[in-house]
Amino acid sequence: MRAVDIIRKKRDTRELSREELQLLVDGATDGTIPDYQLAAWLMAVVWRGMTPAESAALTEAMLRSGEVLDFSGIPGAKVDKHSTGGVGDKTSLVIAPVVAAARGTTKPGRVPIQVPRVYVPMISGRGLGHTGGTLDKLESIPGFNVNLSLREFRSVLERCGCALIGQTPEIAPADKKLYALRDVTATVESPFLICASIMSKKMAEGIDALVLDVKTGSGAFMKKPADAEYLAELMVETGKRMGKKVVALLTDMDQPLGRKVGNALEVVEALEILNGKGPEDLRELCDELSAWMFVLGNRVRTVGEGRELATEMIASGRARDSFREVIRLQGGDPGIVDDPDRLPRAQHEERVISTRGGYVTAIQCEQIGIASMILGGGREKMSDAVDPAVGLVLEKKTGDTVEVGETLCVVHYNSDARLRESVELLAKSFEIGSQAPLVSPLVQKIIGAEQYTGERTQ
Amino acid sequence: MRAVDIIRKKRDTRELSREELQLLVDGATDGTIPDYQLAAWLMAVVWRGMTPAESAALTEAMLRSGEVLDFSGIPGAKVDKHSTGGVGDKTSLVIAPVVAAARGTTKPGRVPIQVPRVYVPMISGRGLGHTGGTLDKLESIPGFNVNLSLREFRSVLERCGCALIGQTPEIAPADKKLYALRDVTATVESPFLICASIMSKKMAEGIDALVLDVKTGSGAFMKKPADAEYLAELMVETGKRMGKKVVALLTDMDQPLGRKVGNALEVVEALEILNGKGPEDLRELCDELSAWMFVLGNRVRTVGEGRELATEMIASGRARDSFREVIRLQGGDPGIVDDPDRLPRAQHEERVISTRGGYVTAIQCEQIGIASMILGGGREKMSDAVDPAVGLVLEKKTGDTVEVGETLCVVHYNSDARLRESVELLAKSFEIGSQAPLVSPLVQKIIGAEQYTGERTQ
Repeated sequence: MRAVDIIRKKRDTRELSREELQLLVDGATDGTIPDYQLAAWLMAVVWRGMTPAESAALTEAMLRSGEVLDFSGIPGAKVDKHSTGGVGDKTSLVIAPVVAAARGTTKPGRVPIQVPRVYVPMISGRGLGHTGGTLDKLESIPGFNVNLSLREFRSVLERCGCALIGQTPEIAPADKKLYALRDVTATVESPFLICASIMSKKMAEGIDALVLDVKTGSGAFMKKPADAEYLAELMVETGKRMGKKVVALLTDMDQPLGRKVGNALEVVEALEILNGKGPEDLRELCDELSAWMFVLGNRVRTVGEGRELATEMIASGRARDSFREVIRLQGGDPGIVDDPDRLPRAQHEERVISTRGGYVTAIQCEQIGIASMILGGGREKMSDAVDPAVGLVLEKKTGDTVEVGETLCVVHYNSDARLRESVELLAKSFEIGSQAPLVSPLVQKIIGAEQYTGERTQ
Repeated sequence: MRAVDIIRKKRDTRELSREELQLLVDGATDGTIPDYQLAAWLMAVVWRGMTPAESAALTEAMLRSGEVLDFSGIPGAKVDKHSTGGVGDKTSLVIAPVVAAARGTTKPGRVPIQVPRVYVPMISGRGLGHTGGTLDKLESIPGFNVNLSLREFRSVLERCGCALIGQTPEIAPADKKLYALRDVTATVESPFLICASIMSKKMAEGIDALVLDVKTGSGAFMKKPADAEYLAELMVETGKRMGKKVVALLTDMDQPLGRKVGNALEVVEALEILNGKGPEDLRELCDELSAWMFVLGNRVRTVGEGRELATEMIASGRARDSFREVIRLQGGDPGIVDDPDRLPRAQHEERVISTRGGYVTAIQCEQIGIASMILGGGREKMSDAVDPAVGLVLEKKTGDTVEVGETLCVVHYNSDARLRESVELLAKSFEIGSQAPLVSPLVQKIIGAEQYTGERTQ
């Protein structure tokens, strides 16, 4: 079996076997298959796609290319959440402590029964282009260390129920290799390759279940709902074939989630939610994602119960306690939880003013992300440094009324090098019209929920 | 303009500009674009195809990647023929001397008028897989040197009207690079890439016109007539866009051309044609191809006149003289022309006998080529050595009647290592039935001939 024959087979729309995919992944990992053959195969996959069996086999082979964490010694379900990326999405900072906080007893006031705890071993990524990354947000917390060894990762997880780190070289090295190649060969945009990349890394976390937040809309990678839904179904199917419980929420990214965009600013907003405040859309999505993590982790029987439990973790302050604890265990300053002013703050602010009155009919969400990026809040390329303090705060969102001279958003900046560019981009990103727009629902569809519906969910 | 953006553009079915294709070809030639990006682009081309403008621009860029011969100082048209490859195709050995022989006067007996001569600067390839190559056939002539310098090539061409050499490093190095990459990335089978590869090399020969012999049938690369026709049209269009006269003949390769397959054996059969004998199908195709070369080289006005001239060159012995001359000028033994026994001859013969009676209804032509290859007459991979003496002689062709016990073909071999395998393959290649088959015409279609029809051709 030669690589060229495997490429030809895929080119000719024939299904690759588990062994053939294994050979490619092994060859990518140990360098025995040259990059040019991998690149040709990747483009053939973009062209021809994959069967569900191929997707699962590729994911499995990529997963097995490195270390697969084993948390089976920790009693309770291990559940993670993954988002396909968007603007202002700080849900991870909320749901990890919320889920971790729900320790093994039922509500106070009832007879305490030991129920399974849900652990959240979360390996996250960095922001690139218009999207933010959980690691960058966490690193805006003074001292917070996302580069734990796998041993330390396990220790933090055991002690506080969640741990938040970055990709390590031990996890799915085949994905690291293939992703770098896809990036320079225009083969990123294949749902099959995206699925294998995400799922191989997530399954390597040693989890039992995964809640996927697949974004769609102007700020998402998959701008069309049909594309997002296709990817969601593919990931759910692949996860199931790998013996994991997977549910995908198709959620709106036609405007930023919440009101704050930028690393420290997003930590501030996450803290607002943990304090029972903050914007409604963000709270709703955090509740929904936490609820599904509780369901998949067998902590509750229905999504409704999951939502209640999430609300309770926030109302009781226990989620905030968990967040304080994980920050402390990972070397960060837990004082930011009660005093967000300890987070980095930009020196200057500038208001973006509306020159028209009416309704905000749409927000060009990707442009909002880019406006934050060019202030230094994000990266154009992976090697760029990020300024944790800068970003923007939206004062108007889609459906809001606005008058001439009112503030659309506030820019937080340190350098005015690209301030004009950012402000102009922001001003153009808000579309103002005379008619109130239809605002799309935040959670548009849930995929893979069938087996949890009926008596078990609402 | 980055390579990744060019790949993406092609992936998304957008037309690449001349500059973008130039960048890729330059990068392939000087190594500044990595192979993995070229491979991804090649697969995207297999997927998305090319517009006629792209095909011409790619061909032009590949052509200009190396030396372009300039024979403008030699008075008269420079015309070549190219075949897409088949089994038993020894036409080049006939038509080069036939066309070269038609020096600048009209028929003897008429008033001598100086008419333009047609020169044939032919750069050929080697055999691979089931197909033979002109260079291998020439090298079965003792002493014949196909590795002339470009200076020697010109000198031979000027002196005898034709010269027959192999690919040199100076000619279209981008093609050499890209072909090697296509070979290992399953991107050979794209009409657009095949067209650019063939046409860039041929146009680098400094020719004014080109006659293409595009094979179709069981022994051709393009087995389906529609695929062959598509390629033929593409090459004709590309050649025209590059300012050259190009005509393509779509010809039958459902069975070997002539009766002899194998290097020295094919030289013997070419000599039979030059002696006014030999199989009818081979003679017909040689006449037709020579005639078109005369037409495109402005030596005659009509294809009919071209055929007459070709016949005359053979009947008069002048073509044979030209062949003797080119062999001598290229260091070979011209004595083989009058005494073919001086060519290498295999030590043993074995007959393949028919076990059925009836009609030969079909011949699996590719299998015939492979049967010759495994005797040592061809190459499985480019680095294999070739035995010039071995091969086979068909005693029956499609449409012939055959009786039980009659010989289907004779195998000429030196080593019996794979003799059984070859004989079995040959026996299976002949399909015998009770009904006489329809034999497809040799020349099935002529593409690009419109401008030469009417009063100028039959």
